[in-house]
Amino acid sequence: MKLTEKTIDSKLHFKGRVINLREDTVELENGSLASREIVEHPGGVCVIGMDENGKIPMVRQFRAPFGRVLLEVPAGKLNYGEDHFECGKREFLEETGYEASEYVYFGALYPSVGFLTETLHIYYAKGLTKKEQHLDEDEFLNVEFFTLDELLDLVEQNEIKDAKTVVAILRLARFLSK
Amino acid sequence: MKLTEKTIDSKLHFKGRVINLREDTVELENGSLASREIVEHPGGVCVIGMDENGKIPMVRQFRAPFGRVLLEVPAGKLNYGEDHFECGKREFLEETGYEASEYVYFGALYPSVGFLTETLHIYYAKGLTKKEQHLDEDEFLNVEFFTLDELLDLVEQNEIKDAKTVVAILRLARFLSK
Repeated sequence: MKLTEKTIDSKLHFKGRVINLREDTVELENGSLASREIVEHPGGVCVIGMDENGKIPMVRQFRAPFGRVLLEVPAGKLNYGEDHFECGKREFLEETGYEASEYVYFGALYPSVGFLTETLHIYYAKGLTKKEQHLDEDEFLNVEFFTLDELLDLVEQNEIKDAKTVVAILRLARFLSK
Repeated sequence: MKLTEKTIDSKLHFKGRVINLREDTVELENGSLASREIVEHPGGVCVIGMDENGKIPMVRQFRAPFGRVLLEVPAGKLNYGEDHFECGKREFLEETGYEASEYVYFGALYPSVGFLTETLHIYYAKGLTKKEQHLDEDEFLNVEFFTLDELLDLVEQNEIKDAKTVVAILRLARFLSK
């Protein structure tokens, strides 16, 4: 079965600070037309770091869509066109106060492929050196440390639900087991 | 540090077939106000199944936000209020033509916690019996079979980027290794 769709019209409904929303009209393989609601997002980067004692800095912050505090790996949004490695290093330092001597790229993740353009890059940070945390003025988060085994338990008990965090933890476990 | 935000205003900007977009004004812990762009999504469910020969049915379909065909586990959107287990069984049958004798719940995933209310449920389906595939009229996808090892390689080579699919594969590998 051929699977391509051809975009024949596109209308921007909302232009925000972070996201835009557009509606595309596409032509399907059977010639019929369909509408696709698409959210444009600049993407982001997250960093799972581990210090020499096997401790992983995690952040807790309030997330408006769920109305509660979630446990996540440190992460930041990209500006359009920004280098994701530079952004990752900066966000990891700002949020946790750590610099790393080596970064391993675990690849990119598409959080919700049906309607969202967001691409999220995942790094593993090794050789951590403590510097100073520098949160943005309107950024409120707490840093806590966990072992990889503790985080794997939290994933399997489904206490951690954030997709980038789950993938970073599971990828790190496989990477370190090899 | 206290982390709560208090919503003091909410404005709906877009009401679509699948998603809505609203903008909330929230009061932060320091008393200042901030805006939160939030996409409301009904959520979904995905199913990673494995037959008696260790083969896992996967689907390839065109994804408008990326303009290309992606490899994913079978999945479907929920209607608001719909039971995710019933939806998962139905979508798995419709897309792949398989029924399962046992389902294991791997838990819920939040694809993009900063702005998106979507919750995605993940099931592992065992004891597969072949029935008939029933695609919706405007649904175009191809089913292909992979072993778990092949899928793990595709995840680690970052050929598979869809978040739900990466998590389903990595969770299944841990589940079966115990």
